[in-house]
Amino acid sequence: MTKELGIGLIGTGFMGKAHAFAYRAALAAFPDIPVPRLEMIADVDHGIASTAAKQYGFARATTDWRALVSDRGIDVVSITTPNVFHKEMALAAIAAGKHVHCEKPLSPSLAHSLIMVEAAEKAGVATQVGFNYIKNPLLKMVRDMVAAGELGEITGFRGIHAEDYMHDPESPYSWRIDPAGGPGVIADLGSHIIGMARFLLGPIAEVSADVRTVVKSRPVAKGAAERKDVWVDDVARILVNFGRGCGGTIEANWIATGRKMQLGFELTGEKGSLVFTQERLNELLLYKAGGDAKTSGYVKIEAGPQHQPYGQFCIAGGHQLGFNDLKTIEMGEFLRAIGEGAKAGPDFREAYEIQKVVEAAIASSTARGWMAVG
Amino acid sequence: MTKELGIGLIGTGFMGKAHAFAYRAALAAFPDIPVPRLEMIADVDHGIASTAAKQYGFARATTDWRALVSDRGIDVVSITTPNVFHKEMALAAIAAGKHVHCEKPLSPSLAHSLIMVEAAEKAGVATQVGFNYIKNPLLKMVRDMVAAGELGEITGFRGIHAEDYMHDPESPYSWRIDPAGGPGVIADLGSHIIGMARFLLGPIAEVSADVRTVVKSRPVAKGAAERKDVWVDDVARILVNFGRGCGGTIEANWIATGRKMQLGFELTGEKGSLVFTQERLNELLLYKAGGDAKTSGYVKIEAGPQHQPYGQFCIAGGHQLGFNDLKTIEMGEFLRAIGEGAKAGPDFREAYEIQKVVEAAIASSTARGWMAVG
Amino acid sequence: MTKELGIGLIGTGFMGKAHAFAYRAALAAFPDIPVPRLEMIADVDHGIASTAAKQYGFARATTDWRALVSDRGIDVVSITTPNVFHKEMALAAIAAGKHVHCEKPLSPSLAHSLIMVEAAEKAGVATQVGFNYIKNPLLKMVRDMVAAGELGEITGFRGIHAEDYMHDPESPYSWRIDPAGGPGVIADLGSHIIGMARFLLGPIAEVSADVRTVVKSRPVAKGAAERKDVWVDDVARILVNFGRGCGGTIEANWIATGRKMQLGFELTGEKGSLVFTQERLNELLLYKAGGDAKTSGYVKIEAGPQHQPYGQFCIAGGHQLGFNDLKTIEMGEFLRAIGEGAKAGPDFREAYEIQKVVEAAIASSTARGWMAVG
Amino acid sequence: MTKELGIGLIGTGFMGKAHAFAYRAALAAFPDIPVPRLEMIADVDHGIASTAAKQYGFARATTDWRALVSDRGIDVVSITTPNVFHKEMALAAIAAGKHVHCEKPLSPSLAHSLIMVEAAEKAGVATQVGFNYIKNPLLKMVRDMVAAGELGEITGFRGIHAEDYMHDPESPYSWRIDPAGGPGVIADLGSHIIGMARFLLGPIAEVSADVRTVVKSRPVAKGAAERKDVWVDDVARILVNFGRGCGGTIEANWIATGRKMQLGFELTGEKGSLVFTQERLNELLLYKAGGDAKTSGYVKIEAGPQHQPYGQFCIAGGHQLGFNDLKTIEMGEFLRAIGEGAKAGPDFREAYEIQKVVEAAIASSTARGWMAVG
Repeated sequence: MTKELGIGLIGTGFMGKAHAFAYRAALAAFPDIPVPRLEMIADVDHGIASTAAKQYGFARATTDWRALVSDRGIDVVSITTPNVFHKEMALAAIAAGKHVHCEKPLSPSLAHSLIMVEAAEKAGVATQVGFNYIKNPLLKMVRDMVAAGELGEITGFRGIHAEDYMHDPESPYSWRIDPAGGPGVIADLGSHIIGMARFLLGPIAEVSADVRTVVKSRPVAKGAAERKDVWVDDVARILVNFGRGCGGTIEANWIATGRKMQLGFELTGEKGSLVFTQERLNELLLYKAGGDAKTSGYVKIEAGPQHQPYGQFCIAGGHQLGFNDLKTIEMGEFLRAIGEGAKAGPDFREAYEIQKVVEAAIASSTARGWMAVG
Repeated sequence: MTKELGIGLIGTGFMGKAHAFAYRAALAAFPDIPVPRLEMIADVDHGIASTAAKQYGFARATTDWRALVSDRGIDVVSITTPNVFHKEMALAAIAAGKHVHCEKPLSPSLAHSLIMVEAAEKAGVATQVGFNYIKNPLLKMVRDMVAAGELGEITGFRGIHAEDYMHDPESPYSWRIDPAGGPGVIADLGSHIIGMARFLLGPIAEVSADVRTVVKSRPVAKGAAERKDVWVDDVARILVNFGRGCGGTIEANWIATGRKMQLGFELTGEKGSLVFTQERLNELLLYKAGGDAKTSGYVKIEAGPQHQPYGQFCIAGGHQLGFNDLKTIEMGEFLRAIGEGAKAGPDFREAYEIQKVVEAAIASSTARGWMAVG
Repeated sequence: MTKELGIGLIGTGFMGKAHAFAYRAALAAFPDIPVPRLEMIADVDHGIASTAAKQYGFARATTDWRALVSDRGIDVVSITTPNVFHKEMALAAIAAGKHVHCEKPLSPSLAHSLIMVEAAEKAGVATQVGFNYIKNPLLKMVRDMVAAGELGEITGFRGIHAEDYMHDPESPYSWRIDPAGGPGVIADLGSHIIGMARFLLGPIAEVSADVRTVVKSRPVAKGAAERKDVWVDDVARILVNFGRGCGGTIEANWIATGRKMQLGFELTGEKGSLVFTQERLNELLLYKAGGDAKTSGYVKIEAGPQHQPYGQFCIAGGHQLGFNDLKTIEMGEFLRAIGEGAKAGPDFREAYEIQKVVEAAIASSTARGWMAVG
Repeated sequence: MTKELGIGLIGTGFMGKAHAFAYRAALAAFPDIPVPRLEMIADVDHGIASTAAKQYGFARATTDWRALVSDRGIDVVSITTPNVFHKEMALAAIAAGKHVHCEKPLSPSLAHSLIMVEAAEKAGVATQVGFNYIKNPLLKMVRDMVAAGELGEITGFRGIHAEDYMHDPESPYSWRIDPAGGPGVIADLGSHIIGMARFLLGPIAEVSADVRTVVKSRPVAKGAAERKDVWVDDVARILVNFGRGCGGTIEANWIATGRKMQLGFELTGEKGSLVFTQERLNELLLYKAGGDAKTSGYVKIEAGPQHQPYGQFCIAGGHQLGFNDLKTIEMGEFLRAIGEGAKAGPDFREAYEIQKVVEAAIASSTARGWMAVG
């Protein structure tokens, strides 16, 4: 077992900060993992890099991510930059023999993602991709219940990830909707719910989707009269057929006015069902058929130490985990896997499989019919 | 304005009783409608018919529905028998010049339904079909808000009607799943949510559906070893494209273990959104964009007299309507329309339009692609 | 068993209409009760009385309630007038040998209420008082569960009835807050939750309350500059000690801004607990201790035919009862009891016992300490 | 401004771990505070202390808390041991000139707590007590709204902190219910909701309480036949009168079967109301009077960066804070206050004021009447 791992973090924005929190908390939560040594942080801006190093407790700062990925003191590289940079950074890190954590999606292009997968597998480094929501202890239990057949044969899945950060047609054009960055909401949010569906139920065999751009143009800047056409999707509605035989629907939507984090599902089996939404991430609804008719109904399960690894954060129920705790679980599992020479998930391969569903959905929308995945 | 209307009710089961409650309550709720005179009730069993007449306050009982539909004292005929009888009864009633209320769906066959529509329109009688859930005062407000543009351009609709009365594979084969009665859940429950979608957003232009039989055989009787193949659908998942341009999904599901009345929708517009479920029929969630960021969110609206015709049942908010009250609104509106010589809805024509969506969805599922409606 | 009962209804307002709905629906819901014959309705205004008779289906109308209570065709008198009239009307009806249903509270004065109780008991007529909310099928189940010890020893009760119809200090002075009508919110709303507590847990032995007037003056009329002092209570907060030994709290509040029908409780026992609110009257939350830790939690029970008499209104779960259905249950039970010569509840005696708790709470507030009830 | 603060942590259990998480995350969340240097951790067990030091990243471990509080490298002492040790440790730390964070309650005895308050104030060190729940960004907004008069005059407060860790009468006797440790639930949980009430509405002037022991004896050990009498309280129900004039109720309950974290309140004003429960700590319900009647209701506010310091943890709404994040806010505020030479809250003085309410409630229960606080 590796005793200590030097961490290099590229990027200091939204997800960069989340990684920093997670690396700082991981050992406190999981004493059995290698000690993460916060070695270096990179940002294109020197001042930001230095400040972030101090704030997050990294030993060194750099503006040169290439220096970071090749640094001898670094064992693990976290990539939290925009998608278009992932491939180059990841390949460089892999080439330097580093284990790589990369935020999702892997890259704007399926072909490029495959290159990343194959490079990592050939090099034998550990990889992980930031599908943090499935790290929820309650979802681990869901997966276990499904696998154990506690709900009987699964007969349906209705999944969604909807938010509203693009709902206003006057929100200006931005990198987020530049086609160079890949698909729109189906990659940005859709990949989360597709990943969750796969985590719980296994592969998706085929899809038939309606992927569309609703806001057809946006101002070039906030308040500008000039507008620019939008080509990426705002909403994707997908009929899915899982490899296990059950059907379902998946929706990705970033113009869902009012929704801030409607990531969730309703999963139905012959003998029971489960309802989850990230809007109340410490709760899970469970229905088990066959109980006493007068007192049956959905049980609201509240997360507690009986749902590991909740107990690594707090020994009492009802105290609740937050988003950054999920990120800590993610990092903890990655570091443990590296230490044990084991495989953590979801890795590059899994991210690639998710992206294949995304691409199949887009193709099926164009073809106006069903499309096999992969 | 007609002063009084003689009522004839065919059928004394689940919906027959609901009609009886509604006719008994209608005038008390709506003093401006013609007085419903409870004239005759029909059931194939003489004892049941007599008992029902006494219990529900009808003057006469009969085992002969033909006698009922041709009786001179009867102006309005309510048909609550199984679907396969609707056509013959409705045509006879129409031929006798009666106004007809028929439970949904009109008939197992689209062609037969069209015959019913045309007969009624030619005869000039008033018709109504039992899509009771859209009579909810809160849904009238939703329709008005959409029509007035209060949510801006509508960008999405996610509708569902899921229950679990068929979830158990050991539930025996029954008339409900006999193909002679028409499609399965897509007609039984799907018609409600399709009708609701049309009520709120107007016509559905095209659909792409996955309509499937999940429980492929059922015991011929409770506990029997012998099983019979099932041909009607258990779940229908539908991508929809509304005539107004917005997309959406609709699901109908009668194997949704745990759900007793999950009829509802999430309706999203550029400027706001609405969430409704019949599971809490006296509540509506509304989000309006553009409010103060610190105190914005979904508003839980509770039904009250400000949402007419709630006030016809109770002058104070918070007291809540129940299912039978919705049925009373439905009957009250039908009787008022007859009295005024006006058109109530949803009439046979609307039920036929709903059925066209059902048929298009089934056809699209077979064709594995999009299908225009009608 | 009496076959038919002539009904006389005094009052045509809020509760008068509710009684009318209930009498019209009672037999349809409960075929085993005597047939209610809607005989006469009384209102001080002749036009209103006539119109109401036609609208609600009563055979006759009168402006003379004395004529009604002594009419030979009438067996049951429903009193829905303001509290100050209850005593005189009820005593006259009792003197004429009628069974009496009276809205709550019985009278503004405990002494007067006792006179009513004793008159009814001496005459041997059946009585009932309009504590409609406890007629909820789910609450019958709660009482049964408590009685059967399913929650173990009961350790606490937290009850409330809060609404907001008086929250605005600019709401004008009215009959509702005239001290001649008795106490304020503690009688108007408090009696409901006190009655519910007694229904579920039995007698309240002693109380210690804070009963206060918060809005100390109100305009004499809407918008008037002149104000009048208010003497009746706006809020009552009560520590209670049940005869069975457990403690609890009860609150009555009519200035609870935002609340339309916050009538409910949390009832805790050693082995389980129950949570109910009339805001969602078709739901009940149940927690049973001792289950599997990973999947335990509050069960949301949805009302269905398994909770009788729900099934008398609808044979399928999930369809929901409304306020008027509760009133129908109330009337159905009263009529059945009369027919059987049995005792229905809550009768005048029970209403008097509830009023004793109200009076003890007021006295305890003045004394600033505990006060035994009765 | 102090640049760096040496941290000494006494105790490695439930709260010790929470402090460790918080100190590790504080600077990442709040870059403007002095850098917390994790200097030393103390536990009576040498192995546990060493392990904890490594796991939580403290430079040194000790079994001698006296060495810790007098260590020159330490500026801030966190005390997370059982209540009975607080006084001695805090006084020693204060004597050594350290700033002190102490978990609640300060001490089992009001007199001892006062000694601690006075020692700290005389020494001029900063103090803080672990009332972490009020660090919720949403509650800061509540306090601001109340202070700004947005709800009008406050007319009522109904607060509760109920959990169920002692509900089972067969749960064995433990230190938690040893009278030497002070009162029972009223100190353990009651202090949280009393503190929250004071945080939002200011001082409580007088109380009238029912403080009782429900489970009168417990097994001396798990499964033991021998039982020991219990003297501390299981439930406290308190009528309160705030100094600002409004009334309310507060309940503390550790036998509330089913409840894991029912810490919350309903706060009502003339113009609006707020509902909060820690069970859903990222949500707040707000009702504002005077809106459009058809679309008014409770708004469900979801925590986001608009509610600072949420944004220090995540720049996007809907991601949710957890318990440990609240603890981080608490520590961040304490360290910032020390750096600025300012006062953070709640300090020893505030904890003492809370304890005075606890003691007054107990006294009032014995006296069976109202008791002024302090």
